[in-house]
Amino acid sequence: MSEPVKIVMDAMGGDFAPAEPVKAAVAAVREKDNIQVILTGKRELIEQELSKYEYPGEKIQIVHTSEVIETAEPPVMAIRKKKDSSIVVGMQMVRQGEADAFVSSGSSGAILVGGQVIVGRIKGVERPPLAPLLPTKKGVSLLIDCGANVDARSSHLVQFAKMGSIYMENVVGIQNPRVAIVNNGAEEEKGNALVKETFPLLKECRGINFIGSIEARDIPDGYADVIVCEAFVGNVILKLYEGVGSTLISQIKQGLMTNLRSKIGALLVKPALKETLKTFDASEHGGAPLLGLRGLVVKTHGSAVAVEQKNAIFQCLQFKEQQINEKIQEHINDI
Amino acid sequence: MSEPVKIVMDAMGGDFAPAEPVKAAVAAVREKDNIQVILTGKRELIEQELSKYEYPGEKIQIVHTSEVIETAEPPVMAIRKKKDSSIVVGMQMVRQGEADAFVSSGSSGAILVGGQVIVGRIKGVERPPLAPLLPTKKGVSLLIDCGANVDARSSHLVQFAKMGSIYMENVVGIQNPRVAIVNNGAEEEKGNALVKETFPLLKECRGINFIGSIEARDIPDGYADVIVCEAFVGNVILKLYEGVGSTLISQIKQGLMTNLRSKIGALLVKPALKETLKTFDASEHGGAPLLGLRGLVVKTHGSAVAVEQKNAIFQCLQFKEQQINEKIQEHINDI
Repeated sequence: MSEPVKIVMDAMGGDFAPAEPVKAAVAAVREKDNIQVILTGKRELIEQELSKYEYPGEKIQIVHTSEVIETAEPPVMAIRKKKDSSIVVGMQMVRQGEADAFVSSGSSGAILVGGQVIVGRIKGVERPPLAPLLPTKKGVSLLIDCGANVDARSSHLVQFAKMGSIYMENVVGIQNPRVAIVNNGAEEEKGNALVKETFPLLKECRGINFIGSIEARDIPDGYADVIVCEAFVGNVILKLYEGVGSTLISQIKQGLMTNLRSKIGALLVKPALKETLKTFDASEHGGAPLLGLRGLVVKTHGSAVAVEQKNAIFQCLQFKEQQINEKIQEHINDI
Repeated sequence: MSEPVKIVMDAMGGDFAPAEPVKAAVAAVREKDNIQVILTGKRELIEQELSKYEYPGEKIQIVHTSEVIETAEPPVMAIRKKKDSSIVVGMQMVRQGEADAFVSSGSSGAILVGGQVIVGRIKGVERPPLAPLLPTKKGVSLLIDCGANVDARSSHLVQFAKMGSIYMENVVGIQNPRVAIVNNGAEEEKGNALVKETFPLLKECRGINFIGSIEARDIPDGYADVIVCEAFVGNVILKLYEGVGSTLISQIKQGLMTNLRSKIGALLVKPALKETLKTFDASEHGGAPLLGLRGLVVKTHGSAVAVEQKNAIFQCLQFKEQQINEKIQEHINDI
């Protein structure tokens, strides 16, 4: 049998740590053979959680860390100061080749900064993008970039298109993924300065299936598989997607409780509604990968529960087995 | 009695022209005394529609125009060439003081270009923003700017904040409206170059109630009354808002039809659901004003029906009676 893929899970990250990350690790090693999970965090707390489950003991390892980076901490300072935190120690293991990937529901800022300064970029990658999956009518689309570094250059966006295509094809399994750039209109003459500069570069770029501009309205329809934009716009899209969705759903739920008639109806529609809303949920695909690093870093939601975190572990497995980083390195400078 | 407010309605604009614009004009003059509506478009078609209704004849006037600007036409060229179109003629009337305002469901591009080059800017206004109202949990928020001119400067954004505040206070009736700038995080150090430059200017700006950054996630909650951003980002927000909303609603409707149980439930919840979705609809407030022009231009949805268009006429009335342009002129260069 080949060497198992080693994945570090931040046991202290997210709203439900350490319970959910530990549960995710147990579920992952029970379900798949070729995984080894390393939990970073406070040993005592982790052991307490682990004691609730049965699992093949040799497949989960604990690396004790004494510090925790809180969500509200300024990320650069946190990464620099808290050398013995679950995030810094976990990322150091990836950097030193002791692990293949790192998964965390912790501070986004710290994960983004740590990915760049601890794990480090693949040679040739100018900027590592954070690329969450958005649920759509037809499945999922990769939104690339939603990271912390805004005001990107056109060369960054071209690299995002390439990395996003490799990811969607090999990890999500979409043949010849359609790449589109976020624009304020469908016509070629539309766009801000950055989009106008990037559009012809994407058009000429070989090895990607560029289909032109995408208006924000068409994103939920699943019109493109890889949606390229700079991080400020990506952040707006990601957060508004979540915001409009959750507001509308809460409004609808409230509306269903207005009178007896609608309350009875609500009981009847509940299972079907739940099923529908589940299809509009990307957590079965894991978390958002930070691409272009020498190793994989995956950010799961702060509110993630074990299912999402377990799927993030499988996402890392797929990433490693499909040799995504080798493919990125090979193609990042193709013209 | 004071002179009636004169509003030009583009009878040829939108998916349901001339039927809906004509119906809107009739409804408006029936409902309010101090309005005169001028319908621009093909006389024969307009007269045919008008013949269906009873209304005070002296309050609706037709100005015949022989041309129509289509939605797909390049706007600058269309405005330049089609001098006898319902849009160009209507805007000329506003420019020459023969009318106070112009309402159209026609080509967005032509309306934006025509507003600037035909109607013209108020002295001191650097760029006229398009400012639609977004439905929120608490009512509506003004999203300013969603216009055609992207890559704004910080001085533009400050003017948007001032004009938006005047509009929300006097037309929508919100006391001391809260102004926020769209950002990729709530902390003051977040932002792209434009936001970082604009933030301190808004903070120091007197006469507006600046509450800081708003993340896209918080927009549907109604966290701010005036949401300031440059037009590329505004376009993404507006279109994604519509896209996520309509996709989710169509998915839910489809979900309700999956089995007999849910179908029966759907019948029971239908009225309550309809009521809920109605609160999530900004059309009762009319259309999106193009602010900072010497006269008012209002863009209603291409798919608008008479209710929205009639409300746009009332919006023009309110705009004129509240002397919004005089207020903008007075305060646009306040520091």
